[in-house]
Amino acid sequence: MRMVDVILKKRDGGELSREEINFFVRGYTSGAIPDYQASALAMAIYFQNMSAREMSDLTMSMVRSGETVDLSEIRGIKVDKHSTGGVGDTTTLVLAPLVASLDIPVAKMSGRGLGHTGGTIDKLESIDGFHVEITKDKFIQLVNDDRIAIMSQTGNLTPADKKLYSLRDVTGTVESIPLIASSIMSKKIAAGADAIVLDVKTGAGAFMKTDKDAEKLAFAMVKIGNSVGRNTMAVISDMSQPLGFAVGNALEVKEAIDTLRGEGPEDLMELVLTLGSEMVVLAKKADTLEEARGKLIESIKVGRALEKFKAFIENQGGDPSIVDNPKKLPRAKYKIDLTALKSGVVSNIVADEIGISAMLLGAGRATKEDKIDPSVGLVLHKKIGDRVEKGEKFLTIHSNCRDVEEIKTRIYKNITIGSRAEKPVLIHKVIMK
Amino acid sequence: MRMVDVILKKRDGGELSREEINFFVRGYTSGAIPDYQASALAMAIYFQNMSAREMSDLTMSMVRSGETVDLSEIRGIKVDKHSTGGVGDTTTLVLAPLVASLDIPVAKMSGRGLGHTGGTIDKLESIDGFHVEITKDKFIQLVNDDRIAIMSQTGNLTPADKKLYSLRDVTGTVESIPLIASSIMSKKIAAGADAIVLDVKTGAGAFMKTDKDAEKLAFAMVKIGNSVGRNTMAVISDMSQPLGFAVGNALEVKEAIDTLRGEGPEDLMELVLTLGSEMVVLAKKADTLEEARGKLIESIKVGRALEKFKAFIENQGGDPSIVDNPKKLPRAKYKIDLTALKSGVVSNIVADEIGISAMLLGAGRATKEDKIDPSVGLVLHKKIGDRVEKGEKFLTIHSNCRDVEEIKTRIYKNITIGSRAEKPVLIHKVIMK
Repeated sequence: MRMVDVILKKRDGGELSREEINFFVRGYTSGAIPDYQASALAMAIYFQNMSAREMSDLTMSMVRSGETVDLSEIRGIKVDKHSTGGVGDTTTLVLAPLVASLDIPVAKMSGRGLGHTGGTIDKLESIDGFHVEITKDKFIQLVNDDRIAIMSQTGNLTPADKKLYSLRDVTGTVESIPLIASSIMSKKIAAGADAIVLDVKTGAGAFMKTDKDAEKLAFAMVKIGNSVGRNTMAVISDMSQPLGFAVGNALEVKEAIDTLRGEGPEDLMELVLTLGSEMVVLAKKADTLEEARGKLIESIKVGRALEKFKAFIENQGGDPSIVDNPKKLPRAKYKIDLTALKSGVVSNIVADEIGISAMLLGAGRATKEDKIDPSVGLVLHKKIGDRVEKGEKFLTIHSNCRDVEEIKTRIYKNITIGSRAEKPVLIHKVIMK
Repeated sequence: MRMVDVILKKRDGGELSREEINFFVRGYTSGAIPDYQASALAMAIYFQNMSAREMSDLTMSMVRSGETVDLSEIRGIKVDKHSTGGVGDTTTLVLAPLVASLDIPVAKMSGRGLGHTGGTIDKLESIDGFHVEITKDKFIQLVNDDRIAIMSQTGNLTPADKKLYSLRDVTGTVESIPLIASSIMSKKIAAGADAIVLDVKTGAGAFMKTDKDAEKLAFAMVKIGNSVGRNTMAVISDMSQPLGFAVGNALEVKEAIDTLRGEGPEDLMELVLTLGSEMVVLAKKADTLEEARGKLIESIKVGRALEKFKAFIENQGGDPSIVDNPKKLPRAKYKIDLTALKSGVVSNIVADEIGISAMLLGAGRATKEDKIDPSVGLVLHKKIGDRVEKGEKFLTIHSNCRDVEEIKTRIYKNITIGSRAEKPVLIHKVIMK
């Protein structure tokens, strides 16, 4: 087999066989196939797309390119949730203990954040003492005992995907649905998920800017998952504005605690219940979504979800007293309120610019080497569709620097007060196999 | 400027600016831009095409990537002819002395053949003593004195094209009209042509298999040439069967001599007169094509063209007596006649398979390292539309091996005798600016 023939076949709109896909993935991982042929193929895939069968084969070929995590010692159905990334997305922090409180195993392997979206581990590490450097055995024991644990991803998982992703980044081939879908799914499958719930964000703050593209990606991933024996479904959720109110690590932990107590932002709570219900059904802990939702609400009501969060923090070395006393979380020196320059209704919040503002304060990383300041960030007081009066505060900056003029300017530029606006619909679509 | 942004712009259907094209060509030539970005761009160009302006800029950028040949010391308008390559294409061997006999400078830089199409230098070197290793000064002096000389291409001409062509060959990006057109035109312009006549072959034996593709390529090249100040026109000519009768080096020299004497195959003569008339007009040695054609025919008639060929051979160390006595050309040991298995009309001759058969006999190179046998090849006695009787010879194999069974089989398979067939039209179209 010659790689140039594989490229030509795809270029001319053909469907690659499993053998051809394996030939490419193996050869590219080993270095036998050079970058310049891989990038030509990626560009051909960008233009010619892939069938569902090709995507599944590419996904499983990338899974087999490296190690896989064996979670078979964990009892129960391991349902993993994956978000395509958004601003102020506190969902995982709430969902993980909430679902675990219903006896569903949450064995989370997570990465760190880069750019304007935060990483779950970074958020949890704002809790004094909390750490993710635990052994695989300890990880499995914690999930079996308390149903929840998180560890930093180790091992050589999906090296083909890592190599291809770096190449796509510099060759203009990132925005290809089959390549994005197989990249995400290969990582989830290699990390040991039995079932997968996908939260595909759509809107200005998301990677997918339109519903059409978000749906295409969701369909592709749901097809891949189900065709390789992992029950998979996707929710398309709104990211035209940040989720919840808080953007920043400790600020989001605080918001997660509020939400687990039943006092969180409406949109965050609704997304948690929507995704959570799907997870509970996939884990076979409820027969219907209504039953699942009822169980989740009950767990919050009686405080079981919050207790689970405490146990989780304590298990991984953190100080659980922050749950009852969130003031013990790292706090920024300065709180600077931004007030409305005129009366009206908030009509637009450019989510990614809000994310970048938080990053510039120190809440995120511009490059891999940057250190995160857990205390800083932003808290919105008004969201799209909310009425605001001239002089009323609509956002608070939490900063360790007194001078935040540049960030203030950026925020004023990216939050619009108009005459009227509808509250955005949160759940755009649910996609089942 | 970042290369990834240039790729993205082209991928999304944008028109690259002159600066962006120069940035790519310079960076790629110097090695600052890696192969994997160049191949991604080439694939994006394959799908998104290029405007006439982009093609001209790419052509001139590749010209400037290396040395150029200065032919300004040669008096007169230097008209170069370029063929996209066909089987048994003896045109240059006839055209060069014929045009030179009308006081038009023919300063030919040529390469060697690869694959199933022969190279002009290889053909001329079948003449004992003929060589192309002459100095640039000698070359210019010969063209000024006798109006004709040929030398092997030297110097670092269009290195960007060479590098890009090698990459395209292994990344499935050869068949792109803007990339082919700019590659051909950059080489012609770097070699010092003032005006260019293009012979774009179409049909089974050509690189362009359909008239539509041949026209697209011709249009692209004519536009490029004229937009950069080189009078350029193209003829689309038939390559559904080999041109003339002979395929093979010495055999084609013999055929060229016959044609210069006015006794050559009809189709070869017609193509020579068509292309030649255009060259004469572009060189301003005639006002109309009719006048030009008259002058060419006259030159053949009075023997001036043949005398020019003799002088040309002698000037470059060859034995001119082969013109009057072609038996002195290298001759193969065996002549094997192929006879018709049934009576009928020749309805198909698969030109590239005939070219491959000649190559397998030793007339061409499968790889760059192969040595050519000047004596071998094939001579057709019948062409498409000709009547043939059962048992009548329709082709002769000239070989230095007695066993040619495999080649015989290949030829029988690729020449069809049917009940009726029209003679193909030779000149499909003429494309002016």
